[in-house]
Amino acid sequence: MRIARFSIDGNVAFGAVEGDSSTATDGELVLDIIKGIPYADFELSGVKVPLSKVRLLPPVLGNKIVAFGRNYADHAKEMGGEVPEAPFAFFKPTTSMIGSGDAIVYPGFTEELHHEAELAVVIGRMCREVPRERVKDVIYGYTCANDITARDVQRREKQWARAKGFDGACPIGPWVETGLDIAAASDLAIQCTVNGEQRQLGSTSQMIHSIEDLIVNVTEAMTLLPGDVILTGTPAGVGPLNVGDEVAVTIQGIGTLTNKVIKRG
Amino acid sequence: MRIARFSIDGNVAFGAVEGDSSTATDGELVLDIIKGIPYADFELSGVKVPLSKVRLLPPVLGNKIVAFGRNYADHAKEMGGEVPEAPFAFFKPTTSMIGSGDAIVYPGFTEELHHEAELAVVIGRMCREVPRERVKDVIYGYTCANDITARDVQRREKQWARAKGFDGACPIGPWVETGLDIAAASDLAIQCTVNGEQRQLGSTSQMIHSIEDLIVNVTEAMTLLPGDVILTGTPAGVGPLNVGDEVAVTIQGIGTLTNKVIKRG
Repeated sequence: MRIARFSIDGNVAFGAVEGDSSTATDGELVLDIIKGIPYADFELSGVKVPLSKVRLLPPVLGNKIVAFGRNYADHAKEMGGEVPEAPFAFFKPTTSMIGSGDAIVYPGFTEELHHEAELAVVIGRMCREVPRERVKDVIYGYTCANDITARDVQRREKQWARAKGFDGACPIGPWVETGLDIAAASDLAIQCTVNGEQRQLGSTSQMIHSIEDLIVNVTEAMTLLPGDVILTGTPAGVGPLNVGDEVAVTIQGIGTLTNKVIKRG
Repeated sequence: MRIARFSIDGNVAFGAVEGDSSTATDGELVLDIIKGIPYADFELSGVKVPLSKVRLLPPVLGNKIVAFGRNYADHAKEMGGEVPEAPFAFFKPTTSMIGSGDAIVYPGFTEELHHEAELAVVIGRMCREVPRERVKDVIYGYTCANDITARDVQRREKQWARAKGFDGACPIGPWVETGLDIAAASDLAIQCTVNGEQRQLGSTSQMIHSIEDLIVNVTEAMTLLPGDVILTGTPAGVGPLNVGDEVAVTIQGIGTLTNKVIKRG
């Protein structure tokens, strides 16, 4: 099932996407509004709205985003050659999230904005110290994310709160796909295009540390809550975004996250 | 005014501390329960409970904690000599917060837990791109925090999400003091003791980057929300905490934040 979060006429809701989103145009897709919050059992209301009439929001309502650095060898190489032995994580705040179709406002404190296409794992249960074999039980689903980075600021500042935590630094969506198991999610094509031109192309099978490893690693230290997001790293090909660019992250079996870069108003 | 957040008999509320907390013992202090959430105008209910009967909670309900590294020259020196020219920030998640009196559970993934006493600035308004002269308008108050750090993990991992983001890594409290202006908050003695023995002693006047600088720096990139916390760095003297230790952070004019380190159960 594909679960979106959206606003329409000033109301915010979750909804299940109806129609085959891999073949249908957005105009043919419909959202069946969900009663309540979908991390536990939920009911569909039967009330439907066309996807083309809504504004998609970040499809999660979580406490934090934990992102892993250099988790694809070819990207680690393009960033300067080190492949870290152990995973290392940083946070992006929930204030950095925007939905598919929302604009990325080019921030005033950087002159080098980069795209980084990533598979996002969405947590479904409060959990801590999750053993490897239970990781599957704490995952709610998967979506696309773009770990937008102010590369010049990242080079200058030892820790990355500003470089990767600014408003708009975490486009995420268009919806959460709940129908993939970990094995399937660990072998998906992931692509980033800018203005239709391919910039990144890889497979989630190229991750150095697996989805299971990452969730074991983070929950060794901290509690994850429903709606929390794990960003799993980006393949090679990261590069600049300029005002006017349209950046799209497509993950096989999930969908496409599209955002336009605009000037600060 | 001193605003605490607490639980009593399973209910959670904010309350104003009555009595002179600098001279009275905790047993003489009383909390006047606040109706609602105190970031805007609020009313006192007149219903009072003794402070000694409540469990103090983190006195803020925010979205994120933005912490600045190496903001005291003597601490930068003890960490290896570099004093960063520009401030640099990292996040701690709200799941890392505990209140005064709560236990710090020694995590399983570290063998070197350190205390770092810090002045915490609590934000009172949603804000972005705050000009220096408006910083005073976005501050709700000040409290004590302990930026508990897994030093061995910090050395090994390039980014500090696990080293400084684990559950219990952010003791904060005992309450928010709303009666200090920035000038007063920028000249307070800050002390950390372990089992009554002094480990850190400095003054907030020793910060390299001022409270105004830090808030300008972070809001240049991101929106802060009411209840968000800025940690302003720690003076020299950081050192190990062991199971059984009682660590206390005292800031002049604010109060004392006390936590005991316990073994994982």
